[in-house]
Amino acid sequence: MRKTYFTPGPAELFPTVEQHYRDAFDLQLGSISHRSAQFRKIYQHTVEQLRTLMNIPESSGIFFTGSATEIWERIIQNTVEFESFHLVNGSFSKKFYDFSSELGKFAHKYEKPFGEGFDYAEIQVPQYSELICTTANETSSGVQMRPAEIHKLKRGNKDKFVAVDMVSSAPYPDLDFELIDTAFFSVQKSFGMPAGLGCWIANPSMLDKAKSLKKNDGIIGTYHTLPSLWKNFEKFETPETPNVMGIYVLGKVAEDMNKIGIETIRKETERKAKMLYDFATKCDYLDIFVQNPEHRSQTVVVVNTVGKPAAEIIDAVKTSDNMVIGSGYGDFKATQLRIANFAAVNIEQVESLIEVMKKL
Amino acid sequence: MRKTYFTPGPAELFPTVEQHYRDAFDLQLGSISHRSAQFRKIYQHTVEQLRTLMNIPESSGIFFTGSATEIWERIIQNTVEFESFHLVNGSFSKKFYDFSSELGKFAHKYEKPFGEGFDYAEIQVPQYSELICTTANETSSGVQMRPAEIHKLKRGNKDKFVAVDMVSSAPYPDLDFELIDTAFFSVQKSFGMPAGLGCWIANPSMLDKAKSLKKNDGIIGTYHTLPSLWKNFEKFETPETPNVMGIYVLGKVAEDMNKIGIETIRKETERKAKMLYDFATKCDYLDIFVQNPEHRSQTVVVVNTVGKPAAEIIDAVKTSDNMVIGSGYGDFKATQLRIANFAAVNIEQVESLIEVMKKL
Repeated sequence: MRKTYFTPGPAELFPTVEQHYRDAFDLQLGSISHRSAQFRKIYQHTVEQLRTLMNIPESSGIFFTGSATEIWERIIQNTVEFESFHLVNGSFSKKFYDFSSELGKFAHKYEKPFGEGFDYAEIQVPQYSELICTTANETSSGVQMRPAEIHKLKRGNKDKFVAVDMVSSAPYPDLDFELIDTAFFSVQKSFGMPAGLGCWIANPSMLDKAKSLKKNDGIIGTYHTLPSLWKNFEKFETPETPNVMGIYVLGKVAEDMNKIGIETIRKETERKAKMLYDFATKCDYLDIFVQNPEHRSQTVVVVNTVGKPAAEIIDAVKTSDNMVIGSGYGDFKATQLRIANFAAVNIEQVESLIEVMKKL
Repeated sequence: MRKTYFTPGPAELFPTVEQHYRDAFDLQLGSISHRSAQFRKIYQHTVEQLRTLMNIPESSGIFFTGSATEIWERIIQNTVEFESFHLVNGSFSKKFYDFSSELGKFAHKYEKPFGEGFDYAEIQVPQYSELICTTANETSSGVQMRPAEIHKLKRGNKDKFVAVDMVSSAPYPDLDFELIDTAFFSVQKSFGMPAGLGCWIANPSMLDKAKSLKKNDGIIGTYHTLPSLWKNFEKFETPETPNVMGIYVLGKVAEDMNKIGIETIRKETERKAKMLYDFATKCDYLDIFVQNPEHRSQTVVVVNTVGKPAAEIIDAVKTSDNMVIGSGYGDFKATQLRIANFAAVNIEQVESLIEVMKKL
């Protein structure tokens, strides 16, 4: 019996994904050379559709990696000589911070408790940090940082790079890619694809910094340095043999999303999020976890369970109606639920989930 | 019209691959958590099938990356403090060597002209090299290094790690994994899968070295260090969200290959290689490129074209019979052909290719 996944990643597949993979097999894309005109057209199409969908300027490069986790590493290697600064409020923003230390950099952090978010006014950026790492959506706690706050952070720190982790929110946040320097996501969240592909957007000043670090004998990596990725990107190629089918399907899903329209997707996301938060407010056994409404994620709704163990709710929903909702992250596994509100689930599916949960 | 790919990677898909992907979609593997029991069973199954197929001991870890290119980088980061040594005789062994320098190590090389191979007796290993990098099959030139020679190299250098690039030959070479320290491949070659997954086999002494480097403030990476990969591997998990479907399908293909039997696959590979080399010997417009028969690859047959441009042959074969053969690599594009002889193409298909080429 087919399940509907409201898990925050991997998540429900976007409705067209399986057919796009079938088409990819019919086109024998698993066998084509990544140095062929056929592959270059695929890469170009995916780039064009993503530019339209997320309003990414022509000047920015768009690259592919094995995962978004890899991109944390690559951003630090390529843009930080000595110091980075991280806004930490959950497990994933913490890992980005940890990576910087592991790569031998001096990593500063401004940390808030799990469930709290950041606004520009309160952030003090350490003077010598070269890179500011923000998280548009902290998947572990369901906290968002609004694009307006991220934009203020860049305007107030024009001499520093601003990186935005959009892993569990892209393409929802309306980020100004003329302003921020770099952002990234993985395909198994809001794009509703099988995992195994990260997507990295970076502007030319990031490339310049990487080149200058390398020139001064810095170690910035090998095949996935920005100079290597960018040189290949200019001809729509990749340094290594990439996940060709994933790149093809991402372009097709972005094209499908462009047909729906990003404004429609954003409005539906907000409408579904409101339905879920409203239900949690009324429901006896649920409480909204994130107190500040402006910090509440629109794509991953996190709720506390009251008087019922989270596992009991998860099991009941799965057993009765084949719907899969996520447990809380780490220490919150027993007492929280995470409900993904990605583009792959529609309003009717969210309504069904709410109906099922009402009956518990 | 469906083509048959005799290209050396990406290559013809193994006959069962598309069905395994369909099954993966039916099982909704694109949506399952990589921290679930369901995923751990998949990882474990793939590991067990690979152990059987390639005779990998229980003590070795088996890990997944985005590509084999990534594994070049990870091996150097995790096992080399100061010096590595590389047997270089083509574009890919050269890249492995370049990566070491890019990562700030002192990289030694013993280089031979394109088309020539290595035997143990002639190799002088620099005293302080910590790692010896060999290539079981140089995809660019069609030169193999025989397992017996690789084994002698390790026996003669027990204090150094020996790494084997099996990218375009696994599972064909009968390597002794009790002896060599590490090997790796990517799935789009002889395993006949769509690209986007690398597989890395390493023994516990590699892990020990990585731990000791880290302890002494060495920078060995972040999520894809051996300590991080191994800790996750012990519970059949991965540090990041991996290519779940790829890992599943690799396990299924390895299982299919085990049903055929590795000895049968090896014999058929040798029989098909002999057919192709014999044909090249007799054919007016072809010459075998690799002079020493013992250095001739069994999985990637490289031939010089005589009196006919390579592109004309490639086009004729494609136009008349929908068969795709590879061009020479780099500078040899105009004057060489590379014909992949992976497990995905059977004896009848190789016979058909030869029949078609006879008529040219």
